[in-house]
Amino acid sequence: MAAAHLPIGVFDSGIGGLTVLRALREALPQETFIYLGDTARLPYGTKTPASVIRYAVQCGRILQDWGIKLLVVACNTASAVALDALRDAFSVPVVGVVEPGAEAACAASRTGHIAVVATEGTVRGGSYEREILARRPEARVYSQACQLFVALAEEGWFTGDVPRKTAEIYLCPMLAQAPVDTLVLGCTHFPLLQQAIAEAVGPDVRLVDSASTTARFVAQVVEQHGLAAPGGSTGGVQFCATDGPERFARVGSLFLGETIHPQDVKVVDL
Amino acid sequence: MAAAHLPIGVFDSGIGGLTVLRALREALPQETFIYLGDTARLPYGTKTPASVIRYAVQCGRILQDWGIKLLVVACNTASAVALDALRDAFSVPVVGVVEPGAEAACAASRTGHIAVVATEGTVRGGSYEREILARRPEARVYSQACQLFVALAEEGWFTGDVPRKTAEIYLCPMLAQAPVDTLVLGCTHFPLLQQAIAEAVGPDVRLVDSASTTARFVAQVVEQHGLAAPGGSTGGVQFCATDGPERFARVGSLFLGETIHPQDVKVVDL
Repeated sequence: MAAAHLPIGVFDSGIGGLTVLRALREALPQETFIYLGDTARLPYGTKTPASVIRYAVQCGRILQDWGIKLLVVACNTASAVALDALRDAFSVPVVGVVEPGAEAACAASRTGHIAVVATEGTVRGGSYEREILARRPEARVYSQACQLFVALAEEGWFTGDVPRKTAEIYLCPMLAQAPVDTLVLGCTHFPLLQQAIAEAVGPDVRLVDSASTTARFVAQVVEQHGLAAPGGSTGGVQFCATDGPERFARVGSLFLGETIHPQDVKVVDL
Repeated sequence: MAAAHLPIGVFDSGIGGLTVLRALREALPQETFIYLGDTARLPYGTKTPASVIRYAVQCGRILQDWGIKLLVVACNTASAVALDALRDAFSVPVVGVVEPGAEAACAASRTGHIAVVATEGTVRGGSYEREILARRPEARVYSQACQLFVALAEEGWFTGDVPRKTAEIYLCPMLAQAPVDTLVLGCTHFPLLQQAIAEAVGPDVRLVDSASTTARFVAQVVEQHGLAAPGGSTGGVQFCATDGPERFARVGSLFLGETIHPQDVKVVDL
């Protein structure tokens, strides 16, 4: 099948989705990926649904025009509000991060008391709550917007007093009210603060990160649709950003866990 | 002069410039202001100069088309990189926040060792350093990007452990190296964290906030150009944003120091 030769498109509002790309590359080492970060218009988390949908479809179209076999929306805010619009607009399979994250949370929780931490936009959209309740109708879902986690991750302040104290302020009041045993990291930036968040919530709360679950889900879709790259493919990544390749490379390297060189980041003019 | 009847246009990347608007209204209570926050594309502080210039000119054009007598660029990043382009593009006087801030710092400092805290974009542009050295060539300028201050201000976390500790991490290494006696708050968000910053730097460092200096400078320009509103004018504000009027109203109320109602925020479609 010709489409199998095409890359997998990965789209995010900026660099956060590189944590998802990292998991995707581990799960699918033979695949080639095109990653597009809409750095000119980040963050999506504080924008209205109408704007996020418009931006997401525009970015999806750029990837589609280049030729991709599958689109991964590696951005929680865009997955939360724009997935239907993207599925309507494009013929390739579209995978978001919310459904796999909800799936993983439902599997992990014993008590059914599940907390979701995310951006303001994702929390307001209520998509994690809907997806969790669709799978476990008896569950109780507690949501908390944690905007500062985004800034901390982008600044590279992953551990220490400031991220731990920030996590305590956001999370401890919520945990004091309910027997939460599972916390969904509902923003692609948050896995970088995993240690600080774990220290704040204590050992009885399990953290669920949608990156690895999404990667497993994408692997299934690739398999089901007969889209796997031909045997012997070595895989690779093309990085693209809509603004600021230097910052993309510098901060993105922290997120991807390997060095990105600015000259390897193609700038896409919207 | 007919232009005197027109409002003063105030432009910012989002809501930070409302701290400047607050000072402007105190200094010029008879004037009417149109405030345009480019919330659809904030933050400017992490974007490239080319993008910031394009956005600033576009926003300036919207205000000019509505009819204004003077344009205040109440955004440090845009003032730092786009002021020349704006002055080329428009015939009305254009006032930024960097020159007044630099002026105030030079007047306040005894030692000539001046620190500037700002966004990444403002620091990289080096405009405060240039403007300070143009006024005091013997001065020593120390710059530090403090991206997290923006997020803390927007989250309403003005005081307490997290902002104080954050300020210590950013500022104490710089202050340990040099006899700084003046610290310029080179981002319109930062005055909201004034108390936490003051606690971190101690009583020997004077904080200079460009909002009030800019307001005094605008009052002079209005006077010099014969642009003062006619006697008996009661003044007022029209708020406009390119996205998210609810968030603009909610967070903006903190910045302006008075309540903004979402229904009073006009949404401008770019």
